[in-house]
Amino acid sequence: MSTQFQGVIPPVVTPRHADGSIDTDSLKNLTRHLIDGGVSGLFVLGSSGEVPYLSNAERELVVSTIAAENAAAGAASVPLIVGANEQTTNRVIEEARKVIDLGADAIVVTSMYYAIGNAEETETHFRTIHDAVSTPIFAYDVPVRTHFKLPTDLLVRLGRDGVIAGVKDSSGDDVGFRQLLLAARDIPNFDIFTGHEVVVDGALLGGAQGVVPGLGNVDPRGYRNLMDAAAAGDWAKAAAEQDRLADLFEIVYTPNGRVSGGAAGLGAFKTALQLMGIIESNTMSTPMPSLNEDETTAIKVILERNGLV
Amino acid sequence: MSTQFQGVIPPVVTPRHADGSIDTDSLKNLTRHLIDGGVSGLFVLGSSGEVPYLSNAERELVVSTIAAENAAAGAASVPLIVGANEQTTNRVIEEARKVIDLGADAIVVTSMYYAIGNAEETETHFRTIHDAVSTPIFAYDVPVRTHFKLPTDLLVRLGRDGVIAGVKDSSGDDVGFRQLLLAARDIPNFDIFTGHEVVVDGALLGGAQGVVPGLGNVDPRGYRNLMDAAAAGDWAKAAAEQDRLADLFEIVYTPNGRVSGGAAGLGAFKTALQLMGIIESNTMSTPMPSLNEDETTAIKVILERNGLV
Amino acid sequence: MSTQFQGVIPPVVTPRHADGSIDTDSLKNLTRHLIDGGVSGLFVLGSSGEVPYLSNAERELVVSTIAAENAAAGAASVPLIVGANEQTTNRVIEEARKVIDLGADAIVVTSMYYAIGNAEETETHFRTIHDAVSTPIFAYDVPVRTHFKLPTDLLVRLGRDGVIAGVKDSSGDDVGFRQLLLAARDIPNFDIFTGHEVVVDGALLGGAQGVVPGLGNVDPRGYRNLMDAAAAGDWAKAAAEQDRLADLFEIVYTPNGRVSGGAAGLGAFKTALQLMGIIESNTMSTPMPSLNEDETTAIKVILERNGLV
Amino acid sequence: MSTQFQGVIPPVVTPRHADGSIDTDSLKNLTRHLIDGGVSGLFVLGSSGEVPYLSNAERELVVSTIAAENAAAGAASVPLIVGANEQTTNRVIEEARKVIDLGADAIVVTSMYYAIGNAEETETHFRTIHDAVSTPIFAYDVPVRTHFKLPTDLLVRLGRDGVIAGVKDSSGDDVGFRQLLLAARDIPNFDIFTGHEVVVDGALLGGAQGVVPGLGNVDPRGYRNLMDAAAAGDWAKAAAEQDRLADLFEIVYTPNGRVSGGAAGLGAFKTALQLMGIIESNTMSTPMPSLNEDETTAIKVILERNGLV
Repeated sequence: MSTQFQGVIPPVVTPRHADGSIDTDSLKNLTRHLIDGGVSGLFVLGSSGEVPYLSNAERELVVSTIAAENAAAGAASVPLIVGANEQTTNRVIEEARKVIDLGADAIVVTSMYYAIGNAEETETHFRTIHDAVSTPIFAYDVPVRTHFKLPTDLLVRLGRDGVIAGVKDSSGDDVGFRQLLLAARDIPNFDIFTGHEVVVDGALLGGAQGVVPGLGNVDPRGYRNLMDAAAAGDWAKAAAEQDRLADLFEIVYTPNGRVSGGAAGLGAFKTALQLMGIIESNTMSTPMPSLNEDETTAIKVILERNGLV
Repeated sequence: MSTQFQGVIPPVVTPRHADGSIDTDSLKNLTRHLIDGGVSGLFVLGSSGEVPYLSNAERELVVSTIAAENAAAGAASVPLIVGANEQTTNRVIEEARKVIDLGADAIVVTSMYYAIGNAEETETHFRTIHDAVSTPIFAYDVPVRTHFKLPTDLLVRLGRDGVIAGVKDSSGDDVGFRQLLLAARDIPNFDIFTGHEVVVDGALLGGAQGVVPGLGNVDPRGYRNLMDAAAAGDWAKAAAEQDRLADLFEIVYTPNGRVSGGAAGLGAFKTALQLMGIIESNTMSTPMPSLNEDETTAIKVILERNGLV
Repeated sequence: MSTQFQGVIPPVVTPRHADGSIDTDSLKNLTRHLIDGGVSGLFVLGSSGEVPYLSNAERELVVSTIAAENAAAGAASVPLIVGANEQTTNRVIEEARKVIDLGADAIVVTSMYYAIGNAEETETHFRTIHDAVSTPIFAYDVPVRTHFKLPTDLLVRLGRDGVIAGVKDSSGDDVGFRQLLLAARDIPNFDIFTGHEVVVDGALLGGAQGVVPGLGNVDPRGYRNLMDAAAAGDWAKAAAEQDRLADLFEIVYTPNGRVSGGAAGLGAFKTALQLMGIIESNTMSTPMPSLNEDETTAIKVILERNGLV
Repeated sequence: MSTQFQGVIPPVVTPRHADGSIDTDSLKNLTRHLIDGGVSGLFVLGSSGEVPYLSNAERELVVSTIAAENAAAGAASVPLIVGANEQTTNRVIEEARKVIDLGADAIVVTSMYYAIGNAEETETHFRTIHDAVSTPIFAYDVPVRTHFKLPTDLLVRLGRDGVIAGVKDSSGDDVGFRQLLLAARDIPNFDIFTGHEVVVDGALLGGAQGVVPGLGNVDPRGYRNLMDAAAAGDWAKAAAEQDRLADLFEIVYTPNGRVSGGAAGLGAFKTALQLMGIIESNTMSTPMPSLNEDETTAIKVILERNGLV
């Protein structure tokens, strides 16, 4: 099938100076690092971008900084898929209009959170947003955050009706993911991405169009190589690259419970990027602690054995 | 112990016109109905106020409308405890400053949501907010929405350190609630409220200072009577009034699964207030459906047997 | 309403020798301690009795030992309510027949576990068991173990139809508990017990007939005093006794995460009984660790301030 | 690495006559159907075998019937991996000894259930069982039933120490599954099976040794073909066969909520086997309802388009 969006589309992390302010120079470096690494798009204001922690002014600064650096890449520039992250329908619409004005080529929308909805309200939610905005919408299925799993039949119906242009799946439900791939196979320009870093080969074997790996901040080229191998039908090579990336993913376990799950993963990506000289500091958004020296040392070992420092 | 805030503090619902716009006349009527009903405070921008669904402009309109009507009550006016409802620390602080400017006497803050935190980050969250704002802070324990139960020892520590002035408990954990009451008994000016409509007598018997019942929109006088009976040591009367209010609470079950849990409870409160002539319409915030004619008829029967219409 | 079963009905713990074998002498001592403490019945083979960990032979030994000691109490003997703890319907029936043969006056049955059922299957489950056995059946609502909350309307329907004689509630859902009390108020000989140690006063104020407190092993007289105060309408005294028992309940928190939740609570009850000289050892069932010396010392302090050693 | 157990090892369903008794003739037919279908082993007394619902006598009858039929296959006979399904350690050991006496070549053991344990107790649980029995042990990770996810580091440690010979994964956690495959790659004779019917190609690409698909009762040859394609490195063919099997798996959704999740899946397998003439009746264990005529018709359509009737 034809696709609008595909390939490696990493969720861009948000660098901060040690004083906590957004580090736009590092963000530009990172944007170039990703484009140079062969990505096909950038997922901006995602969970890996610490979107829940950004103030409205910071969200605007992040999108405009990435958009400017991406535009500066000229022919190499890639589509921007931007999160419109808010609790409920009308708040999402307000947020969506802001990020579209800043240059989003598509937006990413979750089901409601904090609010307690159901499937019917979720359907109304997506249809109402679609009626109000002009860009393609990706449904973001992330029940670990929203505590609501987007039902496969709802996603397929919204896809067939042109309400959504695709799905970013971080549901952790590989069975449902495969069933979605099969059920949506004949919908034109409907693109399904996995957000899970270590099962990309299997997702591609099942027919996924793209991947949104947080770890892709650290090693965009690795994910590009994996995807190229899969596209060429060299599945043994794809699996070998996936296994290597799964080893690299061990950086997220270095805090071993010292910090929250959120702070561990994002902190590891930031710390790796700092060690690689791409961003200045591994400072996290309040109230998350940054990774410490021991954790940084452990991450360096993993980067070294993967040839990244 | 001395208390700053106590008694019946209902979470004020947000009336809308049939076209979906905020109905400020109905909101003023409702505010007077509550003050006349003997409440000791108003909880503004709570879950029952549909705060997750209100745009920023609507939130401002709701607080300013209630504040004006409350001020107009002169000597009868009551404290305003206002929700500062946002995902993470810095976003809460921005929201808190807005509602304090609009007249909040205290603010209500949950743990983070959508963001995935832990106890340490939650402690930093509350301490950082306390450092940034000037009003008392109530911790709002509502794991059905935040998916994080505030630990009793954390609440007690924050209370002893003056970070929080109390707790609004909607945890559904009556064992933890009793243990919190005991553990916090000697903290001066630390006030603990239950948000559960049908177990208020037991909560008061255990030592709670106040109650934040959504059903209190419909029958503030009933909760006031319950509380007065408890204060007078007439527990048989308190329990009898509680049993009557538990029967009245059956209005929230009339949709019987037709709508989401959120829409059922709030829809029932709005429908009852409409039937009582206090608000104009039972229209819900998008994407929640409003209760229908059958449900309205069923609610009328329950109101009639409780002498409210 | 008339009741068949009421009052304090503690779930009897199962003492073991240090070598892990069942300690029948200690079990006899404990049985006498409970009867002398003023209990109205004994709940045998409950979760507090470590029933999941007992082999079939051990289950038989425990029931027959308690039954013999209870019979020896003559006029002071009390009804035995015995758990028929198995995964599914037909396995429960086999188990029920065994414990009825050993002297059970009533049996206690949960919804299915490990098996994944729903409300309809659960209704068939209880009706099929009722058709197969001759004693009254208590439904045991313990979703923390079964991961299925027994719906209030199902319990009421089973009660009205004479399928169950009552409910032992360990659901942690105090709102549902109050609604059950109200909805079942007019069913003759339908008895509702709370299993939560620290909210007994509120449960009795709401109309509960009995209490099944694990902590009642340690202080049966305290619960009897609480219940007598409630029966006399002296709610201030009931609440004061409840607060004292809530302080005593702190013994279960002494391991502070060192052992599993299951091992902490039961281990604390056993350790307290050992310190009080009622049982010989605080040895737990495999694979649960027993509480250690530090924890024992901390428990002793709590027992001392409550006048139990 | 060398393996002890590998390939397609379907969890054998348990046929019943319309009167509810075990149908040993159908069970023999089914056993031959599976062996003729090219399976590498039989998983007996699994969840798909309705083990939670079988009485002890029925469990014995099922194992001995399958063992006899398997023995009769002579050179074609396959290893029997048998569930020792009980709540806690000592009860598992008793159960394990029974099934080993009946011919089990390996046993399958879950973490405790109904009992509330933790990782330490779970480690003791497996080590104690290993010390007591003579056959290889597979850890069965099925948190949807046990409500405890077996930690990857625990499984690896138990594997390295020779306590377990492998893992049957029904965790639904594909990320954890891949990490287990990587972490256990160098443990000799340690075999990892997926229990998820529709992601077998990805699991094999990641290095899994085997598959335990409930759907394999219906189409053992399909899974054998998938596995042979994967072994030959023909991943496009493996994925195509997986997609076909995912379509066949749609039979489990025909009840569409009419019955519980447990009854829907197993009922669909039984109904398909009945339509294929392999078993006599689709009768389910009490209290599960059997699939009805409409559902049977819908299943027939799916079987027909997959060439199975």
